[in-house]
Amino acid sequence: MTRRLHLNAFLMENGHHEASWRLPESDPHAGTDVAHWKRMARIAERGKLDSLFLADSPVLWGDIGRRPSGALEPTVLLTALAGATDHIGLIATASTTYNEPYNLARRFASLDHISGGRAGWNIVTTAGLDAAQNFNRTHLPSHRDRYDRAAEFVDVSLRLWDSWADDAVLADKAAGVWGDDDRLYPPAHIGPHFRVAGALNLPRSPQGHPLLVQAGSSENGRGFAARYAEAVFTAQQTLADAQAFYVDLKRRAGAAGRDPDTVKILPGIVPAIAATEREALALEEELDRLIKPEYAKRQLAEQLRVSPDALDLDRELPDGLPDEDEIEGAKSRYTLIVTLARRERLTVRQLIGRLGGGRGHRTFAGTPEQVADAIQHWFDNGAADGFNIMPPVLPRGLADFVDHVVPILQHRGLFRTGYEGTTLRDHYGLTRPANRNAAPVPA
Amino acid sequence: MTRRLHLNAFLMENGHHEASWRLPESDPHAGTDVAHWKRMARIAERGKLDSLFLADSPVLWGDIGRRPSGALEPTVLLTALAGATDHIGLIATASTTYNEPYNLARRFASLDHISGGRAGWNIVTTAGLDAAQNFNRTHLPSHRDRYDRAAEFVDVSLRLWDSWADDAVLADKAAGVWGDDDRLYPPAHIGPHFRVAGALNLPRSPQGHPLLVQAGSSENGRGFAARYAEAVFTAQQTLADAQAFYVDLKRRAGAAGRDPDTVKILPGIVPAIAATEREALALEEELDRLIKPEYAKRQLAEQLRVSPDALDLDRELPDGLPDEDEIEGAKSRYTLIVTLARRERLTVRQLIGRLGGGRGHRTFAGTPEQVADAIQHWFDNGAADGFNIMPPVLPRGLADFVDHVVPILQHRGLFRTGYEGTTLRDHYGLTRPANRNAAPVPA
Repeated sequence: MTRRLHLNAFLMENGHHEASWRLPESDPHAGTDVAHWKRMARIAERGKLDSLFLADSPVLWGDIGRRPSGALEPTVLLTALAGATDHIGLIATASTTYNEPYNLARRFASLDHISGGRAGWNIVTTAGLDAAQNFNRTHLPSHRDRYDRAAEFVDVSLRLWDSWADDAVLADKAAGVWGDDDRLYPPAHIGPHFRVAGALNLPRSPQGHPLLVQAGSSENGRGFAARYAEAVFTAQQTLADAQAFYVDLKRRAGAAGRDPDTVKILPGIVPAIAATEREALALEEELDRLIKPEYAKRQLAEQLRVSPDALDLDRELPDGLPDEDEIEGAKSRYTLIVTLARRERLTVRQLIGRLGGGRGHRTFAGTPEQVADAIQHWFDNGAADGFNIMPPVLPRGLADFVDHVVPILQHRGLFRTGYEGTTLRDHYGLTRPANRNAAPVPA
Repeated sequence: MTRRLHLNAFLMENGHHEASWRLPESDPHAGTDVAHWKRMARIAERGKLDSLFLADSPVLWGDIGRRPSGALEPTVLLTALAGATDHIGLIATASTTYNEPYNLARRFASLDHISGGRAGWNIVTTAGLDAAQNFNRTHLPSHRDRYDRAAEFVDVSLRLWDSWADDAVLADKAAGVWGDDDRLYPPAHIGPHFRVAGALNLPRSPQGHPLLVQAGSSENGRGFAARYAEAVFTAQQTLADAQAFYVDLKRRAGAAGRDPDTVKILPGIVPAIAATEREALALEEELDRLIKPEYAKRQLAEQLRVSPDALDLDRELPDGLPDEDEIEGAKSRYTLIVTLARRERLTVRQLIGRLGGGRGHRTFAGTPEQVADAIQHWFDNGAADGFNIMPPVLPRGLADFVDHVVPILQHRGLFRTGYEGTTLRDHYGLTRPANRNAAPVPA
């Protein structure tokens, strides 16, 4: 069988371009309007995409002047989208630093039950002091500490999701026995970060547990992904960087005792699509012109840990920026931004334009054929198992991708023409995990 | 205008009677089937009920043999029900002891946005060591501590919900200014239990904040309700007890500086409804016969803090039970059970039958006319502003109430014949709270 692409729609309010909300076609209140999100989910499902995905951080980030701010909580919003769709996978970001395993494992299991097996969890440790200050902290826990907690969080969650044998519910009306207490496996977990007795208060869900997704590319992030992730979202600017990341992560997964094919790697791409290349470039330019540099410069300064005054819009980045080792959050994104600016000798203004389109993800303007070529080129050359599609403008950018790029990929035999399975893991060609409690491996 | 009743549907998997799942008509997998819940929500909405309500505790409670166990997380499940309904209010239980204000306030604000202003929060402090042991605790925090934390939790949540002025979103495309940072009011809260910087990452929701509901009738619970609750659910067995509770809570609300009319009191009733009284009693008897006393005795023993061996099915409760003061969780329910057993000199078997129907709530078997009379009698005699309707069997018990009791109440002018407002607070005749930040009261 031909190897098939996997496609995920990464959705933001009015699209990934920070100025997209200023276009005449955009509804600046779309972010809190569930009808908008339902329309997007239905368009993505019309394109037979594997899944859609919502980023998240439990904090109001940056200036609300700059772009639509605030976000409906993703597990709740995706539950609403489950009711508006039948097939597409639903991946929510949630933080291991600012949640408790019992509550979060339960919400994802609930979403998996409600959606008939379409839930995915993008596991994040949440960078930034701002978020920490919403959760009783005065300091951001270190990168290492956050990843240690994340690993224990996921270990406990897996045990909670496996805490009911698949056959624990007997539903024996005649005998008056609903479930078998002997087929419960409470974790009784005691660790450095958590004590969780269990069992979970939900029978095992259709997928056993949600698809586990990860999106951090730092050293700690890669180690974590190799151990747990079934799908990995990553920001890669060049084919060479993407190939190196792909090889490295597959190798790490193998070293962790996993089949590397069971870890699907999806770089992001922000495609500006139009009938001609000139129109596509014009769309990109129109959007970049709508960026207000004073907002963007302030955000870039925060990301680089420098004062806004240290940045001159018409010069390159100053010398003397910190090393990645000194950064305690969003490490890999920091390095990506600095590398991009230095490699292409971009002025701050140019860098802002590039980041405004996709916040460090690869931007690409072209015809549907050119976008399909760009996708196939990376896919055929060991850089990707699929793509994280990040429309710069919604709904147009998603509809154009679904209606014009997807048919080309289907015609080339690279993408499904209909859903073949029912669960998110089916779409990614992954099997339902066995319950490790109920079928113990002999020692 | 005639004073109007408020009716809330309190739903459990197969109904409140613990043996309801054993009836031939019941689907024992209904609890995790979102289609079941959507059907129930649509029936309740067909009856023009004010709201529906889900109880909750983040723990697997008791034996799974006894009855359908496990529960979809309520904020998630109600989001699914928001998409299946247009008018009815949606009240989810969530714990202040085992959540963080930022996350929970955000989920309720999300549900309020998604449902168009139909969210309600039943605020609980969560009794029981079992739940504590799922959240890093080895001991249950004391009743007093849990209520202190709850008060601070709600205070912070209110400040988060008010952290965006109603007019904070400018959506000024021409100027490129989406929101006004000067119309944000971050709580910057530092208290004994929480530090929360804020602001919330969501614009103010349609209701301003979810309807606040409370259901604990202990001394601490009543004080809390008087201060915060807009609706109060309560278990009352007799008219006299219900009147005393009603007078006491209204008085406390007044003493707390609130208009007592803005606190709606809804006792629970478990109505077994049939065309004749004999059939209604037969239904109740059929259900009671299906209770397995060994399960029920074990649970009663836990509630009474005695060994199961101390209880004899064919004798009354033993002497020497603890005082309410010694109980650290579910205080008022404990007292209600002991009082009921002593007052009516019930054997353990009889007590189990009474509790099996409604876990301490008032059970009532009769014709639709008799049920309507029972409701009106309390309503007309200063015991209730409405009722918490707890169908013993689903969907039958809810459909019978909606199709046969509601029309009688409507005919008597006691209940609405159509929804007149759009939000949950509209249904309860309450006004949208002003934003306390944006319109400060002069000192």
